[in-house]
Amino acid sequence: MNEFELIARLTSGLATNPSVIVAAGDDCAVLRNVDPGNLLLFKTDAIVEGVHFTKEAEPEQVGHKALARCLSDIAAMAGTPLHALVTLALPRQFDVAFVEGIYAGLNRLAARYAVALVGGETVTNPERILISIAVLGQVAEGKCVLRSGAKPEDALFVTGKLGGSLAGRHLDFEPRLTEAHWLVEHFTVHAMIDLSDGLAGDLRHLLNASHVGAELLASAIPISRGARLMAKADPSAKTPLLAALTDGEDYELLFTVRSADAVRLLDSWKQKFFATPLTCIGKITAAPTVLLRTKDGPRPLPAHGYVHFA
Amino acid sequence: MNEFELIARLTSGLATNPSVIVAAGDDCAVLRNVDPGNLLLFKTDAIVEGVHFTKEAEPEQVGHKALARCLSDIAAMAGTPLHALVTLALPRQFDVAFVEGIYAGLNRLAARYAVALVGGETVTNPERILISIAVLGQVAEGKCVLRSGAKPEDALFVTGKLGGSLAGRHLDFEPRLTEAHWLVEHFTVHAMIDLSDGLAGDLRHLLNASHVGAELLASAIPISRGARLMAKADPSAKTPLLAALTDGEDYELLFTVRSADAVRLLDSWKQKFFATPLTCIGKITAAPTVLLRTKDGPRPLPAHGYVHFA
Repeated sequence: MNEFELIARLTSGLATNPSVIVAAGDDCAVLRNVDPGNLLLFKTDAIVEGVHFTKEAEPEQVGHKALARCLSDIAAMAGTPLHALVTLALPRQFDVAFVEGIYAGLNRLAARYAVALVGGETVTNPERILISIAVLGQVAEGKCVLRSGAKPEDALFVTGKLGGSLAGRHLDFEPRLTEAHWLVEHFTVHAMIDLSDGLAGDLRHLLNASHVGAELLASAIPISRGARLMAKADPSAKTPLLAALTDGEDYELLFTVRSADAVRLLDSWKQKFFATPLTCIGKITAAPTVLLRTKDGPRPLPAHGYVHFA
Repeated sequence: MNEFELIARLTSGLATNPSVIVAAGDDCAVLRNVDPGNLLLFKTDAIVEGVHFTKEAEPEQVGHKALARCLSDIAAMAGTPLHALVTLALPRQFDVAFVEGIYAGLNRLAARYAVALVGGETVTNPERILISIAVLGQVAEGKCVLRSGAKPEDALFVTGKLGGSLAGRHLDFEPRLTEAHWLVEHFTVHAMIDLSDGLAGDLRHLLNASHVGAELLASAIPISRGARLMAKADPSAKTPLLAALTDGEDYELLFTVRSADAVRLLDSWKQKFFATPLTCIGKITAAPTVLLRTKDGPRPLPAHGYVHFA
């Protein structure tokens, strides 16, 4: 099967939406302009075999993960994803069924959020599969949430439970698009980021962008069952709290609202998203430090977010 | 230098333009909507060390090539590029100066066409450098040129000279944006494609999309000096004509206009772009075959475009 035959096979029957004028098959995809009063969101992200997934992963999950990471970034701006392009780097000898599985995973997730897959390039990467996704989205002007809007005394919230993602969640997480839209519809969200590098690291990105600090309550950090089980299975592993702070690949939303909104937010969230935890884990401070309050008092949280080239 | 330090270093001082609201540094780039009456163009392309460039290449040229390939695709739609995102896959140990050189090449080309570089991701690819670029552009509704509009009796034109690109041109070609804009401003271009896989292969893409055929005049095909020199140096190499038909990586424009416009086009082109050849190489036919007319008469042109996974 040559490049053109493969692309033709992969790009037939892809998810689409009414804004697509020309999808795969021309020099560029041609798309209707987004509605007036909206801004464009533009994001790329790549995952690599042996770094973000193993050969043993289900190909549908690999495709899901590749696109879901970008959609999680769109969610963090409270945006709506519209279009995606797929660049698939493959060894010269590749398993066609695995590649079709990747596309099946991409396509299923895209269809769920009405994202049009408007093209697919292939390229040779002799040693391993790499999938690079570019996503285009929109957000209503005035509804876009940046990292930079956190204010002292804001309440700091996180969705879901953290840590232990490598046990499986990193391959099948759902981008928090629905939750983000609901949030900005009902509350003024000051700042938001999605957790990819771990709470300790990503919190710092949000704080630095906002020129503020934070105080976290250690006992409030929501710890995943995976992180607890991993700590139990291996006493030399990270403690569950450290795992929740630093494992990364949580793909949850971290955001701030003014403290006066905190109780109403928790109440209405519980009614709307009863299956997904929402936790107030602390507050924003004017002092640009990060303190973790434990039963022994507050201590500085070291900047040990999971730092990587991925 | 960790991932965040590298990104901060690479993404400071990048080319920008007035439509950028948030560039690198948040979860997504945030961009002003394009003007009403325009369509969006969306394209990704990747180049890989050892496939599209060698370790010995100048890093500025590698960066140039990575972006120029996408801009050439935007040119083929008669569009204007606006924004680009860079995904750089790097071995764990990499030469910071080489990476900065890549960014210098990207940045210089971007600035020349007022393209904003609105973000840069890095990812690990242990064995080799891979650069994936996503570009967003616009084109006025009614001015967008697809591959699918060629009509029988149209004159078939190609810019520049073909073949032998690996001798150097593939690393420093200029995307034909200026020429494409001028073309659609002054003529009705029925179909257009940029030549990346070689004339024989890309012509077939245009013809298939348009459900037509073509007759080429062998003596008219513009052959590059590089292709002639390579044939002379190695008698077992491709003939210059075969090189022009199949080498690929020409990044020239192949397009059709109605035959009544051909002479006026050639005349006005010569005045406007005297340094860049424009050649009428044949005509579109209703019969869906590709004939090459030589001094021995017409013969079918085999579908031997340079087929690759790149």
